[in-house]
Amino acid sequence: MPAKSQFISLREAQSPFFVGIDLGGTNIKVGVVDDWGRPLSWLSLPTEAEKGPEDAARRMGEAVLKAIKKAKLQKHDISRVGLGSPGTMDIPAGMLVNPVNLKGWDNFPIRDRVSFHCGLPVAFQNDANAAAYGEFWAGAGKEYHSLVLFTLGTGIGCGIIIGDLIVDGENSHGAECGHIIIDSSDDARLCGCGQRGHLEAYASATALMKRAEELLAEGHPSSLARRFARAKPQNRNTKLIFEEAEKGDKLANQLVMEAARWLGIGTVNLLHTIDPSIVLLGGAMTFGGKATKTGKRFLDAVTREVKQRAFPTIAQRVKIDFASLGGDAGFIGAAGIARLEHRQEA
Amino acid sequence: MPAKSQFISLREAQSPFFVGIDLGGTNIKVGVVDDWGRPLSWLSLPTEAEKGPEDAARRMGEAVLKAIKKAKLQKHDISRVGLGSPGTMDIPAGMLVNPVNLKGWDNFPIRDRVSFHCGLPVAFQNDANAAAYGEFWAGAGKEYHSLVLFTLGTGIGCGIIIGDLIVDGENSHGAECGHIIIDSSDDARLCGCGQRGHLEAYASATALMKRAEELLAEGHPSSLARRFARAKPQNRNTKLIFEEAEKGDKLANQLVMEAARWLGIGTVNLLHTIDPSIVLLGGAMTFGGKATKTGKRFLDAVTREVKQRAFPTIAQRVKIDFASLGGDAGFIGAAGIARLEHRQEA
Repeated sequence: MPAKSQFISLREAQSPFFVGIDLGGTNIKVGVVDDWGRPLSWLSLPTEAEKGPEDAARRMGEAVLKAIKKAKLQKHDISRVGLGSPGTMDIPAGMLVNPVNLKGWDNFPIRDRVSFHCGLPVAFQNDANAAAYGEFWAGAGKEYHSLVLFTLGTGIGCGIIIGDLIVDGENSHGAECGHIIIDSSDDARLCGCGQRGHLEAYASATALMKRAEELLAEGHPSSLARRFARAKPQNRNTKLIFEEAEKGDKLANQLVMEAARWLGIGTVNLLHTIDPSIVLLGGAMTFGGKATKTGKRFLDAVTREVKQRAFPTIAQRVKIDFASLGGDAGFIGAAGIARLEHRQEA
Repeated sequence: MPAKSQFISLREAQSPFFVGIDLGGTNIKVGVVDDWGRPLSWLSLPTEAEKGPEDAARRMGEAVLKAIKKAKLQKHDISRVGLGSPGTMDIPAGMLVNPVNLKGWDNFPIRDRVSFHCGLPVAFQNDANAAAYGEFWAGAGKEYHSLVLFTLGTGIGCGIIIGDLIVDGENSHGAECGHIIIDSSDDARLCGCGQRGHLEAYASATALMKRAEELLAEGHPSSLARRFARAKPQNRNTKLIFEEAEKGDKLANQLVMEAARWLGIGTVNLLHTIDPSIVLLGGAMTFGGKATKTGKRFLDAVTREVKQRAFPTIAQRVKIDFASLGGDAGFIGAAGIARLEHRQEA
């Protein structure tokens, strides 16, 4: 996803400064952020997971120093580094446990190894929680006291922030809300995790693609059939559904509306559990956001489902919107978590 | 429900002292509690909701003073009073908004009126959250960092505590987890709130009675048929199901196991959202707790469903147990919330 934030100059920036690292299965993004969550620099490097975690930790450490230089700062200007990483993990221990998208990185003390390689203290958090904190601190949630972020992509990531609390759980499994059960019937859809009936099996990009293929196989007429047939396997994704929906294809639009309905149901469960100020939708599968007809229809349909199903007071007051930091939420949020830890210890 | 706690004497008690009020639709329970959550006294009075909220506020104020006297303390020994109340409510404002079980008490500033009548500062919270805080502070959750309590009765109440945070939400609707959707099909069971597919429509006492009547109407043989036929309407409740299950009736036992399975599904959703240290089951519908075969089977069945459906790390580590304070959880928890507020302001 493209960077949405503008860089600010050192002259405009407000100290203290933090560095955020967003570790992904394919790429790593590293950036320097000021005390208001505004980025001064960022750079990207390939994860190259196959080279192993120690090599990546070394390159992350180097990238931190490069990003600091790029921001025209010195290492001693940085109060702390934050690292957001995919799980499973042990957050208090700073350990990766069994990260599905980083094969062979099991039981690696990543927090301390990155800290060793950059020579700075490092705060550690789950990537979805870091993105949620980014939106909370410096994005679409910054005016609000509490927030739920759904990151819609291959899976459904989730982060919950209540005031200064990141709901990361006792076993580093807090806010795994892609895996709440919304259909408890025996033939509920199968989730990527192996269980049935999870939100992720209904409203993720993976679920949407599967549903599209089901409906096309049933012979429903749609311009999607040709798009799918012509696309290379690696390009056969929800972007095609979005584009056809935007052009007015009925089936593509129906698919988007269905996903919205399921996401609305999942959102109601979060509202009746957390009752947050705002729910944000982010990630690759936001259908172009409010800039597009389809994105607007998607948001409206989620909101409509919520208003029909949530308690009246909540339905009336909760704000539902798109996230605003795009692909920057991860590193900005990681920096925010470094800042939070720094302030809590001060 | 009977009081489970033992009183302690003033000599054993640890200052400062707090008073807790548990306001219910039928009765009000008021007790003095020490700094460790141990009750020194308690008394009960009828709510007599029909006399209106101002009258009840006056009698609650008087009961606070009586409970203090009963504990052999003086008013100036009390740091603060806590009041747990059914909703809907506005917690920060100290207002009842539209309490379903207290007809005609709409938009009443109950916190300040009780404070006026007892001459002490009053902290205000939802009753289910207060009960959860009671178990967290002084009951079955007291060794743990975070907790979810399900109160199983006519409805399903829920409270979520994470460290010092009571998850009461931005609109005083936090932890309304009786109303999370676990069945999103169009013919899902109807909840008392008017919506479909809510946990409460599957695992509350009301749901269990409805299901029992359905199965009996279908002609399933059971000793319950005779018990139900002979019981006065006001005694036709889940206690009969429990007693027949305990005696070995197959259908009664099946009903208990079904409720446990649904509750297990709801619990998984809480685990994948909050990831708490412990989940407690309390309220009238706990089938005698661990002291009975049926209670043990109920707890085992909830645990089994959770272990099958939750992430492995959570399934392995989370503790699931019965609450321990019984009907005292409400006033002890309300006192605990008074203590929490007192400490946060100190």
